[in-house]
Amino acid sequence: MPVNLNPPVAKQLLPVAGVTLGIAEANIKRENRKDLLVMQLCEGAKVAGVFTQNRFCAAPVIVAREHLAADEGIRALVVNTGNANAGTGEQGLLDARMTCAALAGLLGCKSNQILPFSTGVIMEPLPVAKIAAGLPAAVANMTGDNWFDAAHAIMTTDIVAKAISKQVVVEGVTVTITGIAKGSGMIHPNMATMLGYIATDVTISQALLQQLVTTAANRSFNCITVDGDTSTNDALMLIATGQAAHNEVTSQDSAVYGVLLDAISEVAIYLAQAIVRDGEGATKFITVKIEGGRDEEECKKIGYAIAHSPLVKTAFFASDPNLGRILAAIGYAGVEDLDVSALQLYLDDVLVAENGGRAASYQEADGQRVMAQSDITIRVVLNRSDVNATLWTCDFSYDYVKINASYRS
Amino acid sequence: MPVNLNPPVAKQLLPVAGVTLGIAEANIKRENRKDLLVMQLCEGAKVAGVFTQNRFCAAPVIVAREHLAADEGIRALVVNTGNANAGTGEQGLLDARMTCAALAGLLGCKSNQILPFSTGVIMEPLPVAKIAAGLPAAVANMTGDNWFDAAHAIMTTDIVAKAISKQVVVEGVTVTITGIAKGSGMIHPNMATMLGYIATDVTISQALLQQLVTTAANRSFNCITVDGDTSTNDALMLIATGQAAHNEVTSQDSAVYGVLLDAISEVAIYLAQAIVRDGEGATKFITVKIEGGRDEEECKKIGYAIAHSPLVKTAFFASDPNLGRILAAIGYAGVEDLDVSALQLYLDDVLVAENGGRAASYQEADGQRVMAQSDITIRVVLNRSDVNATLWTCDFSYDYVKINASYRS
Repeated sequence: MPVNLNPPVAKQLLPVAGVTLGIAEANIKRENRKDLLVMQLCEGAKVAGVFTQNRFCAAPVIVAREHLAADEGIRALVVNTGNANAGTGEQGLLDARMTCAALAGLLGCKSNQILPFSTGVIMEPLPVAKIAAGLPAAVANMTGDNWFDAAHAIMTTDIVAKAISKQVVVEGVTVTITGIAKGSGMIHPNMATMLGYIATDVTISQALLQQLVTTAANRSFNCITVDGDTSTNDALMLIATGQAAHNEVTSQDSAVYGVLLDAISEVAIYLAQAIVRDGEGATKFITVKIEGGRDEEECKKIGYAIAHSPLVKTAFFASDPNLGRILAAIGYAGVEDLDVSALQLYLDDVLVAENGGRAASYQEADGQRVMAQSDITIRVVLNRSDVNATLWTCDFSYDYVKINASYRS
Repeated sequence: MPVNLNPPVAKQLLPVAGVTLGIAEANIKRENRKDLLVMQLCEGAKVAGVFTQNRFCAAPVIVAREHLAADEGIRALVVNTGNANAGTGEQGLLDARMTCAALAGLLGCKSNQILPFSTGVIMEPLPVAKIAAGLPAAVANMTGDNWFDAAHAIMTTDIVAKAISKQVVVEGVTVTITGIAKGSGMIHPNMATMLGYIATDVTISQALLQQLVTTAANRSFNCITVDGDTSTNDALMLIATGQAAHNEVTSQDSAVYGVLLDAISEVAIYLAQAIVRDGEGATKFITVKIEGGRDEEECKKIGYAIAHSPLVKTAFFASDPNLGRILAAIGYAGVEDLDVSALQLYLDDVLVAENGGRAASYQEADGQRVMAQSDITIRVVLNRSDVNATLWTCDFSYDYVKINASYRS
């Protein structure tokens, strides 16, 4: 079950002026399941995004990038679950384009004003006829207050839907940010098997919107890992509808930009952490803090070595303070000149290791006390310089294996 | 249970002239368990080795390196299980040195003529008093034909002992190679939580012996992975006693060197594959062949991305031909200019994917047939150039989690 993650409450999810959402059951993989989402955007809305770095990126990722580059103004996003349309070659590209064309025909816009997204099984042909058949129902029920259903429609192996709203005041005007995300396995930076959509009614230039989403992703989705697998389909989209009556934000040095970046980062971090808390089979939420490194790269190397280690993750699942496994992971992280006798390892507030070995003050009972918690922080103080990095991950349980050994059946 | 791995047969393990082995129960972690091994070498025997690259390398690794560098002639090796003496700081170094001193006192040699090895739990103090108390019994039962018991004495989470002998003829003289190894989890190149000891009676220069062990390790132990964790304690030692009556091998261009390299590599590959076949929780043995790459580095990058992917490994555990997960792993392996539409993916003889997607000829039934086997080859043909690499790994099962969530208890 998800770790300390409450499901969203429908009435706490705020509409974003300029965005309407419609959901349908298109029977893509199973019957009687909401598996299709359409988000329509008002004219003049801007969209920026970051995508998977996987070389086998899915057809919809390729098409979405093309359509963003065409710069004709995005008028809608369409998301299907049940099929990733990845590893599908030329036919997959045709299918993604046909999906866009079908929706464009319904909305009265051009195909390249639609962004397609897919998530689900890889290397199966996209049932584009089913999607096309489902689109009219999705379009028919579009409203601005459908975020709760939208968050549910994009789920795959997720147990809990992920959604949040936040408001901040910009030049005296209250602006709204609402975000949804899905993801549970194949979760790794650059990025996860995750789809995230954050919409706001702020007015901002395209260049700054792209910078906002890139920076927010680096603070959030690029700091999480469940299993180290980078998906073919990841995408985080940031939509700014420009419906809020403030002056357009055009400078990253403005106070307004800072306020927006912090607010959007907060939404993105919430969603990213929610993905980890709902990580496949997760029973523990683990924060990995690496402090006192020389640069971010070495901090992240060490952090991910810990966060990816099946031995560390299974020890946390067992609530077993077998903490030597963390030292081993630090040691093989690939920081060549690391002096292991100079670092300290903490579990929450408990000093576990220093001087290359177990701390004299360390008591197994203290380790056990912390390991029994469901939220735990591993902190490594490198004492090399002053750079820090924080990652989030979860433990590795029987259920991870169970979920992934039976996902297709 | 181990995958297609037969236990060794005692009478098939051949003594190596100049090597005697003694075993004892030292109660290091548990009672009534053979957990201590002494290998005594004749005067003039040469030893070369390769060790873990982990920065948190264990105290015995540091001491063994020192003693090899001292170059006073190694006269014995001592191996304990139940405790890795890793992450133990200064005290760990003292304990490793005390172990050597205790054995040196019994054998009448210098401390730096002893190589110590430990495997087991990390970050617990080595119970050196128990080891010292157990050494006399081990020394008392030393014989040349104790390889079978020696292979058992070094096991930790191994289910099956790993040992093999081989003979080849060098200049008309039959020489013997006998090797043992242990390892099951924390298995990754550079290297595994593995200890390997290969002894031969050949006569060879120290420099060539080092080259032999390095090359053989690169062909074998450095091509396996169970869980991607690199241990603190890995070591592969190659012992040449010089008791066989042929001329000393001094040139790597000689035919004899080639014969020896092949024979020792064959022993090392058998032992390395045995570790994977006995991988924690393994139910499948998977050979990953990457062909047609530009260099070994990119072949291994792609091979390890596949071999480390929990999603690929759980699909194999489920015998589910969810082969898109392999494409995803290829895609995120980090080969930046990889053209995914130019490669082919095979499962044994079945063409699964080409042209960026599922092969037209592929039938799910063919994939299922291969996935039902216990030995499976994943073959990726990159069509970039002519370099190949082969790795070996296993699947990821409930039992992996079970073993590692309860290893200390």
